[in-house]
Amino acid sequence: MSGAEAGAPRPDFPDYDEAVAAGFASTDLADDPGLPGFLGIRHTGAGAGWLTAEMDVDERLITAFGTAHGGVVSGLVDHVLGSVCYPVMPRGWWAATTEFKVNLLRPIRLGPVEARAEIVSMSRRTAVVRIDVVHDGRLAAAAQGTVSLQAPK
Amino acid sequence: MSGAEAGAPRPDFPDYDEAVAAGFASTDLADDPGLPGFLGIRHTGAGAGWLTAEMDVDERLITAFGTAHGGVVSGLVDHVLGSVCYPVMPRGWWAATTEFKVNLLRPIRLGPVEARAEIVSMSRRTAVVRIDVVHDGRLAAAAQGTVSLQAPK
Amino acid sequence: MSGAEAGAPRPDFPDYDEAVAAGFASTDLADDPGLPGFLGIRHTGAGAGWLTAEMDVDERLITAFGTAHGGVVSGLVDHVLGSVCYPVMPRGWWAATTEFKVNLLRPIRLGPVEARAEIVSMSRRTAVVRIDVVHDGRLAAAAQGTVSLQAPK
Amino acid sequence: MSGAEAGAPRPDFPDYDEAVAAGFASTDLADDPGLPGFLGIRHTGAGAGWLTAEMDVDERLITAFGTAHGGVVSGLVDHVLGSVCYPVMPRGWWAATTEFKVNLLRPIRLGPVEARAEIVSMSRRTAVVRIDVVHDGRLAAAAQGTVSLQAPK
Repeated sequence: MSGAEAGAPRPDFPDYDEAVAAGFASTDLADDPGLPGFLGIRHTGAGAGWLTAEMDVDERLITAFGTAHGGVVSGLVDHVLGSVCYPVMPRGWWAATTEFKVNLLRPIRLGPVEARAEIVSMSRRTAVVRIDVVHDGRLAAAAQGTVSLQAPK
Repeated sequence: MSGAEAGAPRPDFPDYDEAVAAGFASTDLADDPGLPGFLGIRHTGAGAGWLTAEMDVDERLITAFGTAHGGVVSGLVDHVLGSVCYPVMPRGWWAATTEFKVNLLRPIRLGPVEARAEIVSMSRRTAVVRIDVVHDGRLAAAAQGTVSLQAPK
Repeated sequence: MSGAEAGAPRPDFPDYDEAVAAGFASTDLADDPGLPGFLGIRHTGAGAGWLTAEMDVDERLITAFGTAHGGVVSGLVDHVLGSVCYPVMPRGWWAATTEFKVNLLRPIRLGPVEARAEIVSMSRRTAVVRIDVVHDGRLAAAAQGTVSLQAPK
Repeated sequence: MSGAEAGAPRPDFPDYDEAVAAGFASTDLADDPGLPGFLGIRHTGAGAGWLTAEMDVDERLITAFGTAHGGVVSGLVDHVLGSVCYPVMPRGWWAATTEFKVNLLRPIRLGPVEARAEIVSMSRRTAVVRIDVVHDGRLAAAAQGTVSLQAPK
């Protein structure tokens, strides 16, 4: 870790619910009928303010140029951007992406991709999250976004 | 159109190829095995520096909260971000998303969604594109991103 | 205007106050002690959802490489991002930037720079704004950001 | 440090020049005639892929609402975004901001502000940088941007 990052303050998570985190940490979305299932996203870990997930880029997700469609990466990014919030929100609340920005740093080819989300700021109504996407041992994408935290209706 | 936008200069497109545009203007990706096919994206128009596309949000693409997954919108955004460049690049070149930012402005529910991409700046190696996503007669998302223009190998 | 942009829906501005717009349209911040004064920003027009402003890049604002410091452009962008909201908010409210993204498209050298801000989406609590920065007859920067609308305390 | 961040790969810096870093680590821009001087930016540390800088928000930099102008923060962000690259570029090269995105997380009032920049990805022509802005012991802004690395002419 660099000197620049050593002391960066991070938020407290007073509503952290370890049982919710445990549930999120092992969620496999392979059978989900929607986009997370199409991408084959599975969570690999979750805690207070962080979540990790993986998916495998297979032949379907590759463009004619041999690399993963940018929408695959941004779909993964958007998924973890919201999901990382659930263990630290009051039960029953839900998270909606307000905006995000992603830099695609290098091509992603066939094989596993890991996303690591970390909440860097959180208020009662908003969380700001950073995401690293790792492929083949290198950073393949870096994202930052905002999630709106919604109370139950 | 507002006074603010009236005179904003836009780039020239010296490599614009009307035949390529005509091909892109009617591309239907419903049978594509990848993400564009999963989303059911079909192009509806293309010209010098612009492209429009549509898709239908169906039950598969809706979350438990009744709204389209953010990854659906960002996948559509990423698709048109690259596609809008093909009619204005030399033949054989390809477009790779470098980075983009998207604001999700209102929930998208069941029904058609239209994306309108416009190149606002272009050099030999880079294009910057803005995208409007329209749903139910209103702006549902606004994006801005950069595409790297790659010469054939 | 391209076919892509022709029909993009824009918000209504039910709280638009023409007198406030008239005041903003001619504000000269040359004597402001802060950043807008240092940059020499002067408004040149304002209406329902749009605002234009100008400044002159002089020797002070140029780096050793002969081009305007990126912070000059982002300061101008941030200024119009908030200012464009005042004529369309209820009186007494104020606007705080939540986030923005800017692409610096070409170097800005000595001479006038114009910023054109347009609100593309607005709710009671949030506005999303796009900004074009024009220099020497070409688009020099493109930005998109979010403003939080704050009620009087 | 969270589990999410523990293993995120970071780039190598084969052109790192410790003497350049030592020079950058103590640069005080108080007498610079331009924006960095107006803001009073002084570097406080630099190394392979990271740089820290401070400035003091004084009465000049405060808006009528008692908080720092967003352009102050984005000017500081833009400054460190480019400066962090010099110790890891070949001598004589220069860094130009291509784009960045910043989230303003909480108001900044009178007093010191620290920016911490870290290069998270770097190729021969481009670096992607994340920046934390800390004020009053908390994260006040988070940014991510791209710098173009330019060879001497």
